[in-house]
Amino acid sequence: MKKINVGLIGFGNVGSGVVKILRERKTFLKEKIGLEINIAKICDKDIVAKRIVSVDKSLLIREPREIIHDPQIDIIVELMGGIHPAKEYIMEALKNGKNIVTANKALLAQSGKELFATALDRGKSIYFEASVGAGIPLIKSLREGLVANRFKSIFGIVNGTSNFILSQMSHQQCNFAAALKEAKARGFAEKDPTLDIEGIDSSHKLILLTYLCFGRLVSLDDIFIEGISQISLLDVNYARELGFQIKLLAIAKKEGDELDIRVHPTFLPAGHLLASVDGVFNAIYVSSDLAGSLLFYGPGAGQLSAASAVVSDLVDLTQRLKAGLFRPTLNIVMDNSIKKLRRIDEVESRYYIRFMAKDQPGVLAKISGILAKFGISIASVTQKQRHLLEVVPIVMIIHEAKEKNLRSALEMIDRLSVIKQKSVAIRIEEL
Amino acid sequence: MKKINVGLIGFGNVGSGVVKILRERKTFLKEKIGLEINIAKICDKDIVAKRIVSVDKSLLIREPREIIHDPQIDIIVELMGGIHPAKEYIMEALKNGKNIVTANKALLAQSGKELFATALDRGKSIYFEASVGAGIPLIKSLREGLVANRFKSIFGIVNGTSNFILSQMSHQQCNFAAALKEAKARGFAEKDPTLDIEGIDSSHKLILLTYLCFGRLVSLDDIFIEGISQISLLDVNYARELGFQIKLLAIAKKEGDELDIRVHPTFLPAGHLLASVDGVFNAIYVSSDLAGSLLFYGPGAGQLSAASAVVSDLVDLTQRLKAGLFRPTLNIVMDNSIKKLRRIDEVESRYYIRFMAKDQPGVLAKISGILAKFGISIASVTQKQRHLLEVVPIVMIIHEAKEKNLRSALEMIDRLSVIKQKSVAIRIEEL
Repeated sequence: MKKINVGLIGFGNVGSGVVKILRERKTFLKEKIGLEINIAKICDKDIVAKRIVSVDKSLLIREPREIIHDPQIDIIVELMGGIHPAKEYIMEALKNGKNIVTANKALLAQSGKELFATALDRGKSIYFEASVGAGIPLIKSLREGLVANRFKSIFGIVNGTSNFILSQMSHQQCNFAAALKEAKARGFAEKDPTLDIEGIDSSHKLILLTYLCFGRLVSLDDIFIEGISQISLLDVNYARELGFQIKLLAIAKKEGDELDIRVHPTFLPAGHLLASVDGVFNAIYVSSDLAGSLLFYGPGAGQLSAASAVVSDLVDLTQRLKAGLFRPTLNIVMDNSIKKLRRIDEVESRYYIRFMAKDQPGVLAKISGILAKFGISIASVTQKQRHLLEVVPIVMIIHEAKEKNLRSALEMIDRLSVIKQKSVAIRIEEL
Repeated sequence: MKKINVGLIGFGNVGSGVVKILRERKTFLKEKIGLEINIAKICDKDIVAKRIVSVDKSLLIREPREIIHDPQIDIIVELMGGIHPAKEYIMEALKNGKNIVTANKALLAQSGKELFATALDRGKSIYFEASVGAGIPLIKSLREGLVANRFKSIFGIVNGTSNFILSQMSHQQCNFAAALKEAKARGFAEKDPTLDIEGIDSSHKLILLTYLCFGRLVSLDDIFIEGISQISLLDVNYARELGFQIKLLAIAKKEGDELDIRVHPTFLPAGHLLASVDGVFNAIYVSSDLAGSLLFYGPGAGQLSAASAVVSDLVDLTQRLKAGLFRPTLNIVMDNSIKKLRRIDEVESRYYIRFMAKDQPGVLAKISGILAKFGISIASVTQKQRHLLEVVPIVMIIHEAKEKNLRSALEMIDRLSVIKQKSVAIRIEEL
């Protein structure tokens, strides 16, 4: 029985997890799939540091091209992360006839068009199960399990850091800064958390999900992105009081011939499954036309969880390579009924709005007068008597309104002398 | 390009859904997978009734053996249901070199050993994604997406009928009989609902899940089964009051070297995702050692949902057949650390207990005295003043106790003259 030889570029956290699994489950996997996946070479800048698995020194190299140009190697696993030189290595590897497994969502989101086109051109595949939702078999489910389906929408909690912060604010009744500090202390947030809390990481993942479900490889510029750094405890608590939970959602929705894609904090009905997704967990809620609405939930990060996904990709590729006849496929079909991307201005949504106003007669009349001028109708208003406070929150839920109308109304309202802070508006999704 | 020819036995609800999808998505699927799946023959007792898809009369036959013995047919889809003659047809088909796709959980649960062994012996496969959770890509996830994992436990809401009834009781505040009536009216329950409400269907699915996760093909007799027909509205409401929801769960848990498998109504903490699974939906919560705890959720039944799963099986088989080198595999490995099945008597659990007792002094002392005698300690007691009622419910949550001790205690308690009805005990799972 021929072994399938794998070269690993990036022997860090996930990389060492992959090696550990392939080592410790060698017999287990062989019994399942009838093939041996052999780690032939491992490349990293640092080949001396201790990892969770010890490997023969002869496998360790510093020069990735020794892997890329090794004719014995069938599959290359890229786990070094970052755009450069990961991109160049993958391109070179594809041109050298290698198949690729990667967890590099940022790279695929940014250079997917070029990479997937090169793979197709060379008859090779790029597998990336670990790039969204770590060990949750989401990508396989979208590509294979739901192969016969057309998709209507995706709503994903795909960034564990942000979800932890929002959960922490709610459970511990702390503000954003304190929750972020706790996330860092627990290793759930990086030193510079911008990518996570500002919705960039969620957008990278949304690009991949949109590609899988609708066959469109959009760019970061096509997505309206809003992070969670402006979310206050006040809003978290009002959400709960009104029967919602705030979640950072990655959304792709097909409406008519338009695709609406965005990432932003969202009010979700408290009874919806996504609203119960707590802490660093991820969940993706997908609506398909045959199998209906499905939810996939699990840890969104973690060394062995991500490694579990990488190994499942390796097993799939290995079985296909072994079968000899290899047709690279992503099982992706362009949804030709989509004619354009919907601009955020044109998106219609219900909203939660919080105004901070001087507690004096006539304020509500002024606010609602401006809203009416823009055709925005109010579903409910909450204004609490707050003693000893000069500035009080006025909280509204408004009926479906166009984003651009709401923006114009809020701009006008924020210029009122009675309004003391920039008003907060958070979109509501019904699902 | 060679077409893959499929023969369908059973042109009913799901069968016609499969034909409809393969017809209407021919180009879509071909573009995705590069192969054509051709429905070559369709067999049913009734070949004249109108279906949701119309097919050329020449494809329709009444004699299944014309499919089983057709050398042009590569895959047989069995959707006739029932044990006999479905079993005989599948056996004959395997022996004739056909691969099988089926949704027949009852048959696989009952005769799986024989069927899977014959398939292995003949180098053929039996795929059965539609047999648990309809279109939810659960079986594929367990076999392929989580291929590197060892499993710790499965908790599944796998019977939509029962879940609908329990949800209905809770939301509509009706009793079991009224909820069942509504389920029948809406087409969610069969005329004879026994298999669903008594936990048999859930047990069939549990047998398949246990096989996939632990490599053991147990029999119905190995499972402790309790249905929901004895659940009263009183218990549904007490559950909610105490912070729980009652769900009919299929459970397989590895504890030490024992496997604990059972189906019964269960108190679940209201905050757990499974507790939010409402109506006819299904959800399976799986704990794995690498990818962590995952939840898969979606519609548990439905013509196109089940057909979506059948088509994904067909696509997988087709791609493997086309690749030429076919090794039948279920990706299943026997978990040899499991030495025996745990007997229900030995299961330890927390419990909700409801006694119906005469409202007179000393009752609680008598009950708690007997519980103490069996080493059972009480976590909380709720006894409400009910005016005008002679018999009142006394509700307890008890700490972990062995099933056999609890049974003995309840037997003794139920013989007390102050106890007016058989006491109710429902297991609590923490997850």
